[in-house]
Amino acid sequence: MEISQQTINQLGDNSLYTALGIQIEKAADGKASARLKPASEVCWPFVGQPHGGILFTLMDTTMAWAVLSQLGSGHNCTTISLNIHYTQPAKGNVFFCSAWVTHRTARSSFLRADIHDEEGRLLAMGQATFRIIPADFL
Amino acid sequence: MEISQQTINQLGDNSLYTALGIQIEKAADGKASARLKPASEVCWPFVGQPHGGILFTLMDTTMAWAVLSQLGSGHNCTTISLNIHYTQPAKGNVFFCSAWVTHRTARSSFLRADIHDEEGRLLAMGQATFRIIPADFL
Amino acid sequence: MEISQQTINQLGDNSLYTALGIQIEKAADGKASARLKPASEVCWPFVGQPHGGILFTLMDTTMAWAVLSQLGSGHNCTTISLNIHYTQPAKGNVFFCSAWVTHRTARSSFLRADIHDEEGRLLAMGQATFRIIPADFL
Amino acid sequence: MEISQQTINQLGDNSLYTALGIQIEKAADGKASARLKPASEVCWPFVGQPHGGILFTLMDTTMAWAVLSQLGSGHNCTTISLNIHYTQPAKGNVFFCSAWVTHRTARSSFLRADIHDEEGRLLAMGQATFRIIPADFL
Repeated sequence: MEISQQTINQLGDNSLYTALGIQIEKAADGKASARLKPASEVCWPFVGQPHGGILFTLMDTTMAWAVLSQLGSGHNCTTISLNIHYTQPAKGNVFFCSAWVTHRTARSSFLRADIHDEEGRLLAMGQATFRIIPADFL
Repeated sequence: MEISQQTINQLGDNSLYTALGIQIEKAADGKASARLKPASEVCWPFVGQPHGGILFTLMDTTMAWAVLSQLGSGHNCTTISLNIHYTQPAKGNVFFCSAWVTHRTARSSFLRADIHDEEGRLLAMGQATFRIIPADFL
Repeated sequence: MEISQQTINQLGDNSLYTALGIQIEKAADGKASARLKPASEVCWPFVGQPHGGILFTLMDTTMAWAVLSQLGSGHNCTTISLNIHYTQPAKGNVFFCSAWVTHRTARSSFLRADIHDEEGRLLAMGQATFRIIPADFL
Repeated sequence: MEISQQTINQLGDNSLYTALGIQIEKAADGKASARLKPASEVCWPFVGQPHGGILFTLMDTTMAWAVLSQLGSGHNCTTISLNIHYTQPAKGNVFFCSAWVTHRTARSSFLRADIHDEEGRLLAMGQATFRIIPADFL
């Protein structure tokens, strides 16, 4: 299943993504991608570097869209646990996150995700468990 | 060592904390506490609930202050890995994070942290490794 | 609820615990404790130090008993995710693990655990999510 | 760099691997693979299924070999943190682990690893940070 560009645009235009600088690009078949052009407000304490929590939010968000791309209407998801490792300082103007479901059961999805910079350097890697819940995500 | 209220106020008045609603309360002897009064912008997709990434940022930040409270001048820290488990939905107007160093070596600090709501319910638990780096944090 | 010493003795006398050197001590009200007197076979590659995977097994096992102590008959549990940080080398003849449930829902338990040596030094810290499943553990 | 089959055979013939049923297959250029034919002793509490701690030990071990394959003589490594998610019950007679370094600095290696069964089903996924230490591993 692929989440339509219209839905992505509609849901992606929200206060959280705008405040941080997150943009969802694609979500289909258990995979999702997003980019972060960090708002200057969230680049602290290192100038020009988004806070690690903002990178985490990018990752958590991209993972959620990957989960959603496998769910029908009437279902939503919530993070149970997420483990993130920061491999290098996040320098640059734009950051890219890819997330993919590695296994799915009736009530849970397991995922991995990577964050790269423009030169393709790995900045963060994560893995997580999400719970699937009965709720609308629209 | 205790980080003075003046330093906390000075450093705590930054664009990131303001944008999200984070306020550091105390940092001394390897322990730190902070609170989150989430800006409405970051309460998405569930109205009135800060995004999990914002809770993570609160936790990561509070942990960093706990590390800093054991460092002398000329040292700063950076997150290597952080594992977070979300135990319950984060409902309420204010959230409290406590972080404490569990072990420290010359170059690393290990920590745990909890996030509670106003009723004392555990909303998230985390543990992490931080690296100590030669840099000023002031 | 407290798991009786008879049950602990009966279940604790199994091939896995014997092979590794694990002994359950107590399991009650969401808390459990165990000790490891590592068999020499599992002290590798560092002589006299149990492999990190053996410490993990001690931790995972102790957590499971903490979960079980809150379940009625007809229920068992299985590890979903466990995050472990090794803070110091594990030297000594006996190691102690304490595990405690931090939150419980109908289908999941969240836990933390510590491993200490005889001098009370923290050697490893962990946190985990377990799923509660309909099955007998006896 | 590739670790020679001779070294793998020599080091792989140790009491820990024998007790659990671990066999290293290959370690080169930051990647390693191993298999587990679990000893019946470590298949507990579920008959025919290795304990989750044994799968963890397989993963941790395979990761270590992946790290070692990038180190020169006089260096060894030790696990700092490892996060494991169990996606499905581990049924079967033999299990396969692949581990790969995702990033390396002077003193640390970051890794991921997967465990599959004979049918290629994902049973566990992990990610970790290892510290590189000055010590011989031979």
